Parts: sequence; structure tokens; C-alpha cells
Amino acid sequence: MGKLINDFNDYRQRMNEKILAADNKVMKRIYSVDTLAYQDGALPAKVKEMLGLATSMVLRCDDCIRYHLGKCYELGVNTEEVFEIFSIANLVGGTIVIPHTRRAVEYWEELTEK
Amino acid sequence: MGKLINDFNDYRQRMNEKILAADNKVMKRIYSVDTLAYQDGALPAKVKEMLGLATSMVLRCDDCIRYHLGKCYELGVNTEEVFEIFSIANLVGGTIVIPHTRRAVEYWEELTEK
Amino acid sequence: MGKLINDFNDYRQRMNEKILAADNKVMKRIYSVDTLAYQDGALPAKVKEMLGLATSMVLRCDDCIRYHLGKCYELGVNTEEVFEIFSIANLVGGTIVIPHTRRAVEYWEELTEK
Amino acid sequence: MGKLINDFNDYRQRMNEKILAADNKVMKRIYSVDTLAYQDGALPAKVKEMLGLATSMVLRCDDCIRYHLGKCYELGVNTEEVFEIFSIANLVGGTIVIPHTRRAVEYWEELTEK
Amino acid sequence: MGKLINDFNDYRQRMNEKILAADNKVMKRIYSVDTLAYQDGALPAKVKEMLGLATSMVLRCDDCIRYHLGKCYELGVNTEEVFEIFSIANLVGGTIVIPHTRRAVEYWEELTEK
Amino acid sequence: MGKLINDFNDYRQRMNEKILAADNKVMKRIYSVDTLAYQDGALPAKVKEMLGLATSMVLRCDDCIRYHLGKCYELGVNTEEVFEIFSIANLVGGTIVIPHTRRAVEYWEELTEK
Repeated sequence: MGKLINDFNDYRQRMNEKILAADNKVMKRIYSVDTLAYQDGALPAKVKEMLGLATSMVLRCDDCIRYHLGKCYELGVNTEEVFEIFSIANLVGGTIVIPHTRRAVEYWEELTEK
Repeated sequence: MGKLINDFNDYRQRMNEKILAADNKVMKRIYSVDTLAYQDGALPAKVKEMLGLATSMVLRCDDCIRYHLGKCYELGVNTEEVFEIFSIANLVGGTIVIPHTRRAVEYWEELTEK
Repeated sequence: MGKLINDFNDYRQRMNEKILAADNKVMKRIYSVDTLAYQDGALPAKVKEMLGLATSMVLRCDDCIRYHLGKCYELGVNTEEVFEIFSIANLVGGTIVIPHTRRAVEYWEELTEK
Repeated sequence: MGKLINDFNDYRQRMNEKILAADNKVMKRIYSVDTLAYQDGALPAKVKEMLGLATSMVLRCDDCIRYHLGKCYELGVNTEEVFEIFSIANLVGGTIVIPHTRRAVEYWEELTEK
Repeated sequence: MGKLINDFNDYRQRMNEKILAADNKVMKRIYSVDTLAYQDGALPAKVKEMLGLATSMVLRCDDCIRYHLGKCYELGVNTEEVFEIFSIANLVGGTIVIPHTRRAVEYWEELTEK
Repeated sequence: MGKLINDFNDYRQRMNEKILAADNKVMKRIYSVDTLAYQDGALPAKVKEMLGLATSMVLRCDDCIRYHLGKCYELGVNTEEVFEIFSIANLVGGTIVIPHTRRAVEYWEELTEK
């Protein structure tokens, strides 16, 4: 795995552990609903991760984008599909999404390079 | 068709015509890219409309939500799937999405009632 | 109770029932976490409702503002305090919060008039 | 003047008076800075109102849009210029700005009809 | 003091001085209203800083979060209370607030470690 | 040119090339409309870049701010005018725009230093 991915995963895991260790009930339930929401249901997990990616892009949350890019990659979304998600997000959310798309492309490259 | 749907479609169409009649090149191209973006491609139109719906919800645009609900309905998205889209949007975008979900449910009822 | 309050409460309750009746697990858990979050804890419910009001204002969600104004009123927040919450929200969120403040003041008047 | 304009101005003035009457120092200063900011300076008031309009559009505040459309009209901005402002706002802010543009066009028509 | 805190404070102070030195009246007044808004009034400064923190979180401004965390710490807000503010912000603003919460927890650790 | 400017331009150009190379029609058209929108028209390019800057500030997109600062500088916007744009953006968008203004001032200094 590349450096962007490792750094992101390490920091994310380390800080999530601290958040859960604080033992705030509401935060813990938000984390557990978050896990539940992306599981296979009427819609397959793959589509749900696409929804997670697109919503993260229009809300312009780089870390959320990285997380869902990773999940999309694991679930078999390909590069052409990812760019169609990017295109909907840039259209709906406007050109302010472009800088986040640049960083998303860089991260996606790391995910897909062998 | 119900009143909510008719009122929305009438106003939308009437004002879109005025916007296009103003003959601003940038606005016209934005409209034409908008049409292009939701067509079948690597991802089917149905998934793209789901992305359009979810992004509209987290950005809390009631008219955009109505438009994409209409398209999702036409393309065969069912009620259980729509609620899974709502759930991702409410999770990612927070409880401020709830009031928009209430209005979305009301519109969806009109779309699906026979 | 005044008309604004009644209309808001009626629509809110009616649509919330429909949302919960759809039996989407994620939506139901979001609703239950929402109830949990505003209960007395390390911070009293009154302060939490103030936080709910201020965050709703900067995110410019009129229905959320109405809901938290109602809760603030029930928990004894007075008019001078409410205006201090408004002032923080308008400062942090900018003058785009002003139109929401106008509607908030109208709703607060209905809550406080006898 | 048309109905949209009258209703907007009446409600705005009536509620602004209530806000100022509450005598919250921070709110009053925000209102006075607001007046100061749009006066002729290094940039003419006309350009500043255009900035006010464009920022209100991307932040999707209908009442703010109406206010700045009124000011732009008073200061001699013409229809072709207004549509160029709309086009920048729709490009930067994305297609979620379109519904606000529809309502802006309706209001601008009322302002410019004789 | 830790490195995160020092770097934040240094850059913030240095650039604030440049902004004020530019002698733009509107910017200077915004800074002075900002100071005024968080002083003891009908609500104590401590509650106002909590409102500043919560609104900064839902608007996802890391520097604003850091600033208000610092102020909350100075005014005696404890870790359990801070996590209740985090929980309201994550609930109202959604899971896109989580990455900002991670960074907030890291900063809070630096503030509270002895 | 200074380091901030070089780093920004290099990364921007490199990633834009990758985005365009992916050959997604919607993304390519968004890029071409983006070029079209800021050309001289009823409004001069200079005013349009000011609109681009102000909207980028209220939407709090640091990279977009940098891009439009660069364009404003090329088109002869001076420091006093830039600060008036900053002041409108901070007023409309609130104090959450301040951290972005700090970074904008640092970038503007690099653009204007000889």
C-alpha cells in the first residue's frame, strides 16, 4: 500500500480508538449506525459506498472521500465508474468540488496501482 | 398526478424556459451537461439518479430532491431502496437532513399512490 | 398555541410517524440517538438544546430551529439568552443567517406570548 | 411594485425592527457593519452588491438573493449582467443553485417589469 | 504547550496582525464584534464558547474548532463535557464531522496533557 | 514566484491533466464551461474573477481562493480591492471565513511581493 493510504488508515484508526475509549454513548452509537448503514440491504453495499462517496464529495470532506474510495475499490468499483461518480458530484456540487477531485484522483491512483 | 408534483413540474418548466431564453451561454451549457451526466454509461442511469438524490439530500435542496425522486420513480427504484438512500443521506449529512426527508416522503407518497 | 407552532408540530409528527413506519433500521436508530443526545448528562439538557439551536441556525435549517426553540422555551431559556444564541450564530455563520433569525424571532414570539 | 417584492420588503422590515428592538449589542453591530460593507470604497457599491448577490446564490439564501437583486437593480445592473452573475454562481456552486436561480429570475422579472 | 497549539497560535496571531494592518474598516469591526460576542452576558462566556465550538464543528472549520477548544479549556470545560459537545455536533452535522472530531480530540489531548 | 504559488500551480496542473486524461465527457465539459464563464462579456473578466474569489471564500475552498487570487492579481485587482472582497465574504459567510482569509492574505503577499 502507498503512503497516502497508510497515513490515512493509521491516523483514522488511532483517533477512532480514542473517540470510542471516551465512552460517550452518542458517539458510540453514531459509529455503530455508520457500520450498519453501508451493509447489503435492498441496495447492495457497492451502491451504498458509491452514495457515501458522492455525498462526501459534494460535502467536500477529503477524509470521507478517501474512506469511501477505499471501500469502493474493495467492492470492485472500477475507474470508469469512479469518474462517473466524480462527474455527478462536480455537477451537483459545482467547481468547488474540483480541488477535492484532484486529491481523490491521487488517492485512487494509489489504490489501483500494483 | 398529485398537486405537489404538478406544481413542482409546472414552475420548474416555466422558469427553466425563461432561464434558457435569456441566452446566457454558460447557463445553457450547464443545463446540457446536466442532461448528459445522468445518462446510461459505465453506471446505469438508475444508479446515477440515486447519486443525484443522495447528493441533493445532503446539500438540502428540496427542489433537487423532488426532481431526482421523480426520476428514481420512473426508473424503477422502489420504496425500500429509496429509504436506504434516505438513511445514507441522513447519516452522512446529519439530523438537519430530517426535515427534508419528511418532505421527500410526502412527495414520494404522491409519486407512488395510485 | 399559535398557528406556526401547531402547523409545525402537526406536520412534523405526522411525517415522523411515516418515516418510522417504513421500518428502515438506520433511520430508526438515528431517531433514537437523537433522543438520547439531548438528555441531561455532563451538560444539562438546557445547554444541549442551546447547542442544538445554535448549530441549526448556522446550518440554516428553519424546521430544526423551530424544534430547538420549542425545547429551549420548555427548559426555561429566556428571551435575552435566546438573542445571545442568535448573535453567536449570526457572527459565526454570517449575514446569511439573518433571514433565518427573522423567522426564528417570529416563532419565538408565538412561543412566549400569552 | 409587484407582490413578491412588497411581501419580502414588508416582512423583512417588520422583523428587522423586532431584532433591533431586542437591543442585543452583537446583533446591532452586525447590522451596522452590514450597512458599512456595501458602501462605495475602493470598489464601487455596484460591484459590492454583485459580490453580495453571487455569494448569496452559492450559499443558497433566497431572501439574501432577493435583497441583493433589489440593490443591483437600483444601482443599474442590467439583465445581461445579472445572468452572468447567475452563471458564475451556478458554475461555482453547482446545479443545486438552479432552483434558487429560478426564483431569482421570477423576482428579477418583477423588479424590471414596468 | 504542545506543537499543535504553538503552531496554531503563532500563525493565527501573525496573520491576524496582517489582516488588521490592512486597515479595512469592515474587517476590523468584524474582529471587534467577535471579541464582544463571547463575553459574559445573559449567558456565561463558558456557554458561549461551547456554542462557538459546536457551530464550528458542524461548519467543519478545523482552525475555528481549535480556537474554541482552547477557550473552552481555559474556561474549565472538562473532557466529558467536550465529548457531549462533539456528540451533538456529530449528530446534527452528520458523519462528515467525524474527521474533524478526530483532529479535535488530538488537539484537546495536547491542551489537557500535563 | 514563491513556494506557495509554485506548489499550488504544479499540483493543480498535474492533477487536472490526469482528470482530463480519464476522458470522462461530463468532467471535460465542466472544465470547458469553467473557462468560458470567466471571459469578458457583459461583465469584464476582472469583475468575474472577483465574483469567483468571493464565492470561493464563502464556500471556504482554499484552492479555489488561491486560483482566483492569482487571476485577480493578473487582471490588476489591487490590495485595497482584495481586502474589500475579503470583507464582503467574511460578512456574508461569517467568522468561519477568517481562517481562510488568513491563508488568502499569505498567498496574496506572495503574489504581490517583488
